[in-house]
Amino acid sequence: MKKKLFSKNLLSKSMNKYRSARKIGLTPGSLVYTGEKKIATTTIIVTDFNAEKVDRREIAVFTELPEQRESKRWLHIQGLHDTELLQMVGDAFSIHSLVLEDVVNLHQSPKIEEFEDYLFIITKMLTYDEENGELKSEHISFILLDNLIISFQETDAAYFDPIMRRLENPKGRMRKYSADYFLYTLLDLVVDHYFIVIDALADQFERLERNVISNPTRYHVEEIHHLKRQVITFRKLVRPLRDVTNILLSGDVNLISDDTNVFLRDLYDHTIQVIDSLETQRELVSGLLDTYLSQVSHRMNEVMKVLTIMSTIFIPLGFLAGLYGMNFVYMPELNYKYGYFSLLGVMLLIVIGMILFFRHKKWL
Amino acid sequence: MKKKLFSKNLLSKSMNKYRSARKIGLTPGSLVYTGEKKIATTTIIVTDFNAEKVDRREIAVFTELPEQRESKRWLHIQGLHDTELLQMVGDAFSIHSLVLEDVVNLHQSPKIEEFEDYLFIITKMLTYDEENGELKSEHISFILLDNLIISFQETDAAYFDPIMRRLENPKGRMRKYSADYFLYTLLDLVVDHYFIVIDALADQFERLERNVISNPTRYHVEEIHHLKRQVITFRKLVRPLRDVTNILLSGDVNLISDDTNVFLRDLYDHTIQVIDSLETQRELVSGLLDTYLSQVSHRMNEVMKVLTIMSTIFIPLGFLAGLYGMNFVYMPELNYKYGYFSLLGVMLLIVIGMILFFRHKKWL
Amino acid sequence: MKKKLFSKNLLSKSMNKYRSARKIGLTPGSLVYTGEKKIATTTIIVTDFNAEKVDRREIAVFTELPEQRESKRWLHIQGLHDTELLQMVGDAFSIHSLVLEDVVNLHQSPKIEEFEDYLFIITKMLTYDEENGELKSEHISFILLDNLIISFQETDAAYFDPIMRRLENPKGRMRKYSADYFLYTLLDLVVDHYFIVIDALADQFERLERNVISNPTRYHVEEIHHLKRQVITFRKLVRPLRDVTNILLSGDVNLISDDTNVFLRDLYDHTIQVIDSLETQRELVSGLLDTYLSQVSHRMNEVMKVLTIMSTIFIPLGFLAGLYGMNFVYMPELNYKYGYFSLLGVMLLIVIGMILFFRHKKWL
Amino acid sequence: MKKKLFSKNLLSKSMNKYRSARKIGLTPGSLVYTGEKKIATTTIIVTDFNAEKVDRREIAVFTELPEQRESKRWLHIQGLHDTELLQMVGDAFSIHSLVLEDVVNLHQSPKIEEFEDYLFIITKMLTYDEENGELKSEHISFILLDNLIISFQETDAAYFDPIMRRLENPKGRMRKYSADYFLYTLLDLVVDHYFIVIDALADQFERLERNVISNPTRYHVEEIHHLKRQVITFRKLVRPLRDVTNILLSGDVNLISDDTNVFLRDLYDHTIQVIDSLETQRELVSGLLDTYLSQVSHRMNEVMKVLTIMSTIFIPLGFLAGLYGMNFVYMPELNYKYGYFSLLGVMLLIVIGMILFFRHKKWL
Amino acid sequence: MKKKLFSKNLLSKSMNKYRSARKIGLTPGSLVYTGEKKIATTTIIVTDFNAEKVDRREIAVFTELPEQRESKRWLHIQGLHDTELLQMVGDAFSIHSLVLEDVVNLHQSPKIEEFEDYLFIITKMLTYDEENGELKSEHISFILLDNLIISFQETDAAYFDPIMRRLENPKGRMRKYSADYFLYTLLDLVVDHYFIVIDALADQFERLERNVISNPTRYHVEEIHHLKRQVITFRKLVRPLRDVTNILLSGDVNLISDDTNVFLRDLYDHTIQVIDSLETQRELVSGLLDTYLSQVSHRMNEVMKVLTIMSTIFIPLGFLAGLYGMNFVYMPELNYKYGYFSLLGVMLLIVIGMILFFRHKKWL
Repeated sequence: MKKKLFSKNLLSKSMNKYRSARKIGLTPGSLVYTGEKKIATTTIIVTDFNAEKVDRREIAVFTELPEQRESKRWLHIQGLHDTELLQMVGDAFSIHSLVLEDVVNLHQSPKIEEFEDYLFIITKMLTYDEENGELKSEHISFILLDNLIISFQETDAAYFDPIMRRLENPKGRMRKYSADYFLYTLLDLVVDHYFIVIDALADQFERLERNVISNPTRYHVEEIHHLKRQVITFRKLVRPLRDVTNILLSGDVNLISDDTNVFLRDLYDHTIQVIDSLETQRELVSGLLDTYLSQVSHRMNEVMKVLTIMSTIFIPLGFLAGLYGMNFVYMPELNYKYGYFSLLGVMLLIVIGMILFFRHKKWL
Repeated sequence: MKKKLFSKNLLSKSMNKYRSARKIGLTPGSLVYTGEKKIATTTIIVTDFNAEKVDRREIAVFTELPEQRESKRWLHIQGLHDTELLQMVGDAFSIHSLVLEDVVNLHQSPKIEEFEDYLFIITKMLTYDEENGELKSEHISFILLDNLIISFQETDAAYFDPIMRRLENPKGRMRKYSADYFLYTLLDLVVDHYFIVIDALADQFERLERNVISNPTRYHVEEIHHLKRQVITFRKLVRPLRDVTNILLSGDVNLISDDTNVFLRDLYDHTIQVIDSLETQRELVSGLLDTYLSQVSHRMNEVMKVLTIMSTIFIPLGFLAGLYGMNFVYMPELNYKYGYFSLLGVMLLIVIGMILFFRHKKWL
Repeated sequence: MKKKLFSKNLLSKSMNKYRSARKIGLTPGSLVYTGEKKIATTTIIVTDFNAEKVDRREIAVFTELPEQRESKRWLHIQGLHDTELLQMVGDAFSIHSLVLEDVVNLHQSPKIEEFEDYLFIITKMLTYDEENGELKSEHISFILLDNLIISFQETDAAYFDPIMRRLENPKGRMRKYSADYFLYTLLDLVVDHYFIVIDALADQFERLERNVISNPTRYHVEEIHHLKRQVITFRKLVRPLRDVTNILLSGDVNLISDDTNVFLRDLYDHTIQVIDSLETQRELVSGLLDTYLSQVSHRMNEVMKVLTIMSTIFIPLGFLAGLYGMNFVYMPELNYKYGYFSLLGVMLLIVIGMILFFRHKKWL
Repeated sequence: MKKKLFSKNLLSKSMNKYRSARKIGLTPGSLVYTGEKKIATTTIIVTDFNAEKVDRREIAVFTELPEQRESKRWLHIQGLHDTELLQMVGDAFSIHSLVLEDVVNLHQSPKIEEFEDYLFIITKMLTYDEENGELKSEHISFILLDNLIISFQETDAAYFDPIMRRLENPKGRMRKYSADYFLYTLLDLVVDHYFIVIDALADQFERLERNVISNPTRYHVEEIHHLKRQVITFRKLVRPLRDVTNILLSGDVNLISDDTNVFLRDLYDHTIQVIDSLETQRELVSGLLDTYLSQVSHRMNEVMKVLTIMSTIFIPLGFLAGLYGMNFVYMPELNYKYGYFSLLGVMLLIVIGMILFFRHKKWL
Repeated sequence: MKKKLFSKNLLSKSMNKYRSARKIGLTPGSLVYTGEKKIATTTIIVTDFNAEKVDRREIAVFTELPEQRESKRWLHIQGLHDTELLQMVGDAFSIHSLVLEDVVNLHQSPKIEEFEDYLFIITKMLTYDEENGELKSEHISFILLDNLIISFQETDAAYFDPIMRRLENPKGRMRKYSADYFLYTLLDLVVDHYFIVIDALADQFERLERNVISNPTRYHVEEIHHLKRQVITFRKLVRPLRDVTNILLSGDVNLISDDTNVFLRDLYDHTIQVIDSLETQRELVSGLLDTYLSQVSHRMNEVMKVLTIMSTIFIPLGFLAGLYGMNFVYMPELNYKYGYFSLLGVMLLIVIGMILFFRHKKWL
């Protein structure tokens, strides 16, 4: 498993590259989807709702977009590779071409931009693939117009299903409150997913720590760096969100009502908490490398001690044996009757002395 | 003891996880107590007091809440798992549902929020469990209304008993001053506990330092990281309190009177002092790891020296012995009468020469 | 290849020196070109354009500069060594002598300066020479006057060709919008190049990481430092650009129209993204050194283990052999018929015992 | 000496503890002296002075305080354990109880607090005990009222004697200028002491560096950490003083006249200089640990080389000797007349070859 | 050479000490020159100039100061030990005594102070002594009055000669512009010298890097720290200059005219560039220590490998030789005719096997 882990996942994804060479010289605002095509067809989920009713349909072609029946509408677009469709959406609601460019540019960090008629927010949905220990990021954008929310995601993953279920509940705040509250619930859902990822990273950390302490191997260094890299990437993707929520909170944004403000304050708190947790995790992961190194140097010490004990005991004994293996004509000890047994006794004393010495040095 | 220490405490609590997966999609403001149920029943301690009188009762059911008899009231609620009771408290005093959510969300960091009619503050009570060297944190919230303070804690630990005793004193400022001064005394008590924990951590550091210097073992690395982690966690829990006290001090908070301000300035000073001490401790604990590593490398050096001295002395001697153990027909030295003793003399000279060499190298 | 790499490129370019000694005492504003002469002759490319027409010519002598035929003009000057020509350009458009000094001073960091009639911006064009792994920086300056843009570059590299091609397109915004939008497209092109360099550095990082993990040699330390140095240099050259774009965005700059602002915001986002990526790369490269060191210490451990296993197994065996090689007259074992084979058996048992011991220690 | 140094001083004082457990629950503003009683009796030195006269007396009881005879008065109180006396001082000049609490709380960091009628400043007097290498800190507080300065110190150390001598000089500015200038001279004296301590730490650093380079022992690690700890403590005590002087400088403080401002600016400069020097010292001390480690690893290398050279030379020789010590019946070389001498020659060639190899490797 | 280098230069100058003990208790503003007397006599160079004429004289006694003949005057004072002369200068132009104290206090960091009638600036002139690799700093102060500049330097080094030569040029801006422009040229000259020192440090870095890579010795650690220390000292001396130029630029300084502003902006840019270069150098020097350590550990590895290869090959061979050197009565192999040669064959096979094993391990 480890072989597989390192040869592909760890290395090839170690840095998020831009591969933007072919883009140089294009007019700014050109719609170029920078990712792979992840789903076959783009789907638009149209949800019209107000305090009384919810009406939901799926369409595949933008021209089929029905009239807005209720006071609020949520357009959820799954799939970003169909740039023509996105261009039509943009034209229909007079969205700036640079905004559309950011919607399809997967490398764009989270940000907020306020325009005269609408508000544009980019976030990253993060999930953790337990199987191969990979952090997965999906590019999510929101456009808030008056009583209309448009959301974009790369795949057809069901992140927003809980929102749809809650919309069914006729007593939910979402049905009654204005569109900016709805935007808040979408953002809140994104941040909720961050906590799951943090938990997953914490699990991975604990498993790794247990392994490093019980039986450190050199693959652990790679795993530690892999984990550290994920924490760094996570932090890089989440940190700009603090500014986003902060701007939402500031009270200067037109489309945000005062009633939603107390909820946004809560969202801001959660964002801060996520960032704090990531900082702490980073410190802990760095500490884990120290643990690994000290375990390794401990083992090295063990090896050295065994070598030294064996050598130190047997080297003088070997010398003595060699001494009486010499062929001098006149070596009186050789002729003593108990010479051999006396020597064995001397050797035993040397061994005992050595063992006492090592005990004294606390090597045994 | 060490085995126990690492197998459970250190590892399983190494990161505070959120386990919030099941919460995704819940309406914001839903009351979900995120901790274990730590005490059997929730108790409400009602204390009515003014300059003349103090009247204290314990009730178990919120509906039994008696009329407020004196000018100021303190409601102290022990146990956060009974979310229905909390909902009733919230309804009775028109507390926002997000505030109640934070009261029961143990992962919420310290913060302050000002509402039109009340002030909401979250802090963490910290205690140090000497037995297994664990930092324990308890989630404490305060709501200050006009002449009414509500405080929430997870367990029935008697942290606030000194306050209750001081309330008995008819000349105490608490009796005379307004409710915001009472809030200050509660916060001051929380911060006072931080100093105890800092002292306990300092004791642990000193004990550890003594051990690392006298007899470093590989378990010390774990203990150093454990201590470092506690200091980091402590700092993470206390740092937001600086902002809390700073906002209280700013003079912009409605419910805080000018008289209380000089006391809050004192509280702010103490908070800064706690944070400074933690920063210093963190630097010292990091230095301890260096000490450990240098001790270990010192030991390694010792081992190497013994090995080298033994080898270097006996290897040439062994060679000489082997030389005269050869079976060549014509080896003139073997037939000299004093050949054997001459050789012993040469060996002695070699040993003396080696010892002088090691002396010169300062290895002996 | 490595020899070459280190002996010249890495070392001699490790720090960008100023060699400004000879300049001391010169009047500020003196035109001294601080680089080598990189191309033979200076060329001026004159492009007059408006929504309807584009007219492009190349001239070699500034006095040949034709009348401006269309509403907007772009003067692109390739080659900075001809200070007389630059002086004439400066005089013709009343450019401050300090501005001209900065145009030819290759050591000047990116900056923006606003004058009454014009705006002066310095940037660095960065390219990555794949062949010898060198980051190349070219000094690029822009002067924006009313309906006139002057750009300066050191060589005749075709960086701005895409702009020229886009100018051909009669529907492009560049033709219609004012000169400040044209300045934006030039800056955008510079930033687009940064993404290519980031990708190249990421490739280099991945290649290096693969090598360090599979077969670390001491040359990798040099390569890691070389890469780190390039990231640091890159960051040093790009960081000031953040302030440049920020000032452009601020709305306080006269020559920048509101329409261009939304594009500049996009440019600012890209700049931030470049800087963030560089920060992440720096952290990753530092982590790579840890990986290298742990690989090396792993190898050291391997070597030590082999030595220890061999020594520990054979040292006692050798002792036994030496023991029965002694020449004592009375050594009963020597006369046993099966003495020799018994000893061989004992030796075999010792070897088996040792191997079991090493298995237990997990060294085998 | 070293033994003593580590067993007590270094360890027991390694962290400044608060031992505040017993204080929990006390009313804020309670006067509890947190240090040991350092002198037997508290002394009050009363100095009345104006441009013409100086009148100085010592009293032991505050009720004996004479009438203020000249226009300015300086009350200098030596000894903080007599809290009753301090309470009387506080009552006499209407000092807030929290101020008095800070006067006796030795753990309080330097700070400034402005009240309606007076200014309260805490500083730390630092001295360096050369004998046992300890930094000593004394808690010094100043209260500036209109034409009255009260100063408090723990012991009867003669820090302020130079001030008293300068007061004798009838032409000194202190006599003529207002009380705030007098406060400045007191603060200036405190800062002057910091420079002495910095010099002492620099001396200690140099002595340590010399020792580490000439003969590093493991005690040096402790000494380096001890020194680092002192620099950290020093910085922690001095850093808040920057804010104190900054606030004094700001011009917003009532009791500070414009004439004193230029002097305070000088004081601020000195404070900055002290902090800068401490930052530099901290960097240097950290570098010293690197030096130590590289010296130690250098020694390890030396040891390894000797071992390797001895082993590598004698192991093959020993093998050859063993070879011709074998008892095979048919070993032709043994019967050659010059077999033994030929073998000695071969051995000599091996030794020479080895030495050349080590020369080549630069180990000899 | 190295011996000399470390015993004196590196150690004794490692920290800039204050030796201010004797100063404690002195009245602020006392003129105490804190350096050694570096030149025999103090010289005053008086230069009167305007657009038409330049008139330059040297005087030794301040009372000989001639009438100011032209509209602008530059007084350049070489030598700071003659405090009486400085006092006379101060009195003549009503300079504050604290300013004079700073002029002679060599430990004062660069700063700017604005007074009603004059502007006071301290800078450090830095030069690099190639011979013994020392950074030399000279204390330079400037006082700008209306049409009068006074400059002070410690020695009679000819730093300002280029200025004097440029004054000769009748068309130079210095002759025409006001005195603040003249101050700018002086400051610009100081900053120009910084670039020379940066180049010298870069040269030293490159030389050191080359040595560390080709043949690292333990003296290199010292040299690396020495270089790092110089960069730190340099940065410490230059960093305050950023604030100085920033204040000059701010437009709030009375004596600075708007015309000079564009030049000061240039000066500010250069200062920033110097500080940025120093930051980069610091990072590079720190990286050099890593290079050194990895080189050393590489060498250690080499040594270990040779030891291991020799031991591992000869230990089993030695055992076999010992085995057949035993004196058992019954050892059948000894009597085989080709026993000896067979054993030699076996030994050869073992050697080949070992070599293949080491090849496999990539140790050979």
